[in-house]
This record gives sequence, structure tokens and C-alpha cells, in this order.
Amino acid sequence: MPAPNALYAQSGGPTAVINATAQGVIEAVRRARPAAGKLYAARNGILGALHEQLLDTDAASAEDVAALGQRPGSAFGTARYKLARFEDDEREYHRLIDVFRAHDIGLVFFNGGNDSMDTALKLSGLGRRLDYPLTCIGLPKTVDNDLPVTDCCPGFGSAAKYVAVSTREAALDVAGMARTSTKVFILEVMGRHAGWIAAAGGLAGSGAGDAPHIILFPEVPFETDRFLQRVRESVERHEYCVIVASEGARYADGRFLSEAGGTDAFGHKQLGGLAPVLANMIRE
Amino acid sequence: MPAPNALYAQSGGPTAVINATAQGVIEAVRRARPAAGKLYAARNGILGALHEQLLDTDAASAEDVAALGQRPGSAFGTARYKLARFEDDEREYHRLIDVFRAHDIGLVFFNGGNDSMDTALKLSGLGRRLDYPLTCIGLPKTVDNDLPVTDCCPGFGSAAKYVAVSTREAALDVAGMARTSTKVFILEVMGRHAGWIAAAGGLAGSGAGDAPHIILFPEVPFETDRFLQRVRESVERHEYCVIVASEGARYADGRFLSEAGGTDAFGHKQLGGLAPVLANMIRE
Repeated sequence: MPAPNALYAQSGGPTAVINATAQGVIEAVRRARPAAGKLYAARNGILGALHEQLLDTDAASAEDVAALGQRPGSAFGTARYKLARFEDDEREYHRLIDVFRAHDIGLVFFNGGNDSMDTALKLSGLGRRLDYPLTCIGLPKTVDNDLPVTDCCPGFGSAAKYVAVSTREAALDVAGMARTSTKVFILEVMGRHAGWIAAAGGLAGSGAGDAPHIILFPEVPFETDRFLQRVRESVERHEYCVIVASEGARYADGRFLSEAGGTDAFGHKQLGGLAPVLANMIRE
Repeated sequence: MPAPNALYAQSGGPTAVINATAQGVIEAVRRARPAAGKLYAARNGILGALHEQLLDTDAASAEDVAALGQRPGSAFGTARYKLARFEDDEREYHRLIDVFRAHDIGLVFFNGGNDSMDTALKLSGLGRRLDYPLTCIGLPKTVDNDLPVTDCCPGFGSAAKYVAVSTREAALDVAGMARTSTKVFILEVMGRHAGWIAAAGGLAGSGAGDAPHIILFPEVPFETDRFLQRVRESVERHEYCVIVASEGARYADGRFLSEAGGTDAFGHKQLGGLAPVLANMIRE
């Protein structure tokens, strides 16, 4: 019996390094032969599996594959797409098994964050349900660093470095001109439920008094009076105040400081414009 | 007669390379001795001259001075501060001449952008008015690249590279997930009256169809219908649309698309939040 083929899919927002994971998977499969079969890459994540848009990664030279490790973005395309619960609608699941069967795919590498791991979990239970031999392996990817079990998730390091460097650069500029111009600077960063990215802003400082002077975390309830007090103190003491604010900053009752109104493909509330909300608060 | 001393002042917003200009001035003065005297650096730009906060640059080692060339921010502090017109209020001008006289300063290097060059012009006329031998030399610095006479102003290159790289990175991410998520991405960039920085976003693309698909310039009147039409066409043709928008984008009648209401230290209208204005336009 020949080795089953495998499918690799990227999922959710791209990171600076998700293609490095693709490189790792492709090279590992090549090394594992003949114990491993073909490795297909899905076009645009789970959509490629549903629409049978599969790329044979053997078409890529060793150089092409090695180059993936240095390329940001999502080389094969990705998707934010939520499969219905099996109990509610089986159709897409049957379609997936049909595609897998047509290409002898017995192994799926699903590369993504929390929502993607939910999809991976659904896929991994599918084989048993539909009596098809299928193994699904989740490969971690998220800038938020909030995937359970992972310690430092691929994607977080690049985001952390970016935020730390941006905070430092902006802080130097603000410090240089605080006497006559901008005294308070707010950097709004991602991380809806996890403050890792916001915390990374703290790497910009190397001693007491260094920027950032305030970091707002989703995990720490926001108190308006206390916040304004700390802004005031920082401006009095250091002439300026640099704030790194997580988009997920919220009040004790759970309300986000900034809710834009809409919801995204996963039904999460869409956040936006925390920085202007804080800026207005400070101005008043 | 000993050579007169000189004063160096940084002015306006810092750039990634304004300290490299400081390095150049300090090293040039050292080389020119004994034809040149001492070189003072003003703390916080023109404020340092007014408050007699002058640093003797001889206190810095050759290594310290060389290191300036690699340091972003404003090493000596800067200011956005507008001198009154001489005709309206002479007091600050007399104060400046008093400070210059006390330190034998006959030469001023004023490092800044358009507003700073206005201050430099006022200073350069001061010697004649108040019968004090004073030469003032403007050293160009601006990210906007809109200083008359300069071709590629120190500060613009770093800003241009940043915008080009950011546009490309964001475009790769958006292209990767446009099927199921973000289809339109707007990068708002500086440049109130000059589209150089926005134009630099164009460096992100290397061929027809590459992002950015639309660049909004202050110099080209904004037409809502035409803009929305082009967004639609880009999404239809490329699946996504990347827009680089100058903060100074305006209608044919001169109104900025986004006016935040306030004015800054120079009386310019404060702009802010063009991207949400465009995003709402597209959403509707």
C-alpha cells in the first residue's frame, strides 16, 4: 500500500513567518519519503480543499521551498472561514472527504490560530464520523501568542519585535519634541483577549521612567480615573507619556473601550479606533 | 580676533536621520578649527536659545559624535515654536541676541523643515536689524520632501522606505486572505501638502496590477464617485484593493477629507482619521 498523501493549508491572517512553517512541512515530507506520499498545498486555506484547488508542492524546486522561509505573507493564500457544526450542516464535511478521497489524502496539516485550531479539531473528528482514515495535525500560527499549549507561537516574535521597535522609535520622537508639541502618544496594538503584543511594547524601555509609561491590557480592567491620573503623572514627571494600548482594553464589566459595531467572519465583535477614544478622553 | 562660536539647533518633528546632520555639523566645525570657534547645541531647539540652555559639543567624544549618525530621534531635543513677527513683538529677538552675544555666537545652523526655515529666515535678518554680526544657515530636514530647492531632503528617504515596505507587507497579507476577509486596505500616510510620501507607497509594486492600486495625493482633487469606481474595479480585477492615502487628500474646493477640528502650534489645521472616513465611504 503506498503512503497516503498529505495536505497543507494556511488559515487565518498571515504572519511574517507562516511561510517558514510551510517550508518546514514541505522539507520534512520530502525527507520522510518513501514513508510519506505527495504533499498538496490548498489554495486559500480550507477554501482550496472545498473547491479542490490543490497545488502539488513537488512542482516547487528546493530553492523555491527554501525561499519560503524568508517570505512574509501567505504563499498559498489563506482564509477566514468557519465550517458549520457537523450537527447543523454536514454538506461541507462530505465534500471535504470526497476531495480527500479523490487525492488519497490521509493527513492534513492545518496551520493557524485559535479559530483555525477549532477547524482542525472538527476535521480530526471527521474521519471517525465518516469512516475515512484521516489524521489532522494543527500547526500553531498567531501573532497574539494565545494558542493553548504553545509557549512562544510562530508569528508572535515578529509582532513583538515590530511593536517594541515602533514604541521605541515613536518614544524617541515624542521625547525630543514634548516641550512644545505632542506630549501624549498612543500606540494601539492587536491582541483582543491576550496582552502579549501589548506587553511586548514594554521591551522598548530599559529602565525606570523609560517609555512606554502605560500599557493597557485586555486582562486588566480599565479604570478611567486611574488611567487619566497616570497620564498626568507621567507628563509631569517625564514631560511626556507613551501609551501602548491593546485593542482589547475593556472595562470591568467586559465592555470593550472601542466597539466598532460590526462582527467578523467568526462572529467576533469588530474593534476599531481605540486610540481616538483614549485621545479624546485625555483631551477632555 | 578669535573665530566666532556657532550654535546648532534642531527644529520641528525629528526624523530618522536628523542626528546624522548634527554629526556632520559637529565634525565639520571640528575640522575647520582654528578658523571655527566653539559649537553649542541648543536644548530643545529655539527654546534652548531663548532659555540659554546651550550644550558645548566639545564635551562629546569623537565616538559619541560618530554614533549620532546611527541614532533616530532628536539627540538635543527639538521644538515646534513660532517666533512672533518682529514687527509685532521684538522681545524674543532681543533676548536671542543677548544670548548670542553672551556666548560670542556669530553663526547659527538651524536644522528643520518649512516652518523652521521661516524661523531661520527671521533670524538671518536679525543681525542687520539689531546691528549684531549674525549668519544663519538653514539645514534641510523633512519627511515630506517639500522643502524648496532641495531635491531629496534628509528624512524623506527613511519615510519613503518605511511606507514602501509597509505597503508591500500589508498588501501581501491582504492578497493572501482577500477571498474570505479584508478586501480593501487603506494606509494613511503623512504629507499635508506634498504627495511625495504617498507616492513612495508606489515603490511597493513592481508591475501592473501590483499594490498599491490607488494612491491619493493632496495635489490631485478627490472625486468620490471616481474613487469608489476604482476601488470596485480593483476588487473585481485583483480580488483586493490597496490604497495609500495622503492625510492631505482634499476635494476640488480645497476642503480636506478629514479635518479633526483643532489647529497646531503653527496654526495649521490638524488632520486626523482620513482612513476611517474612506473606510466608511467604501462600506456604504
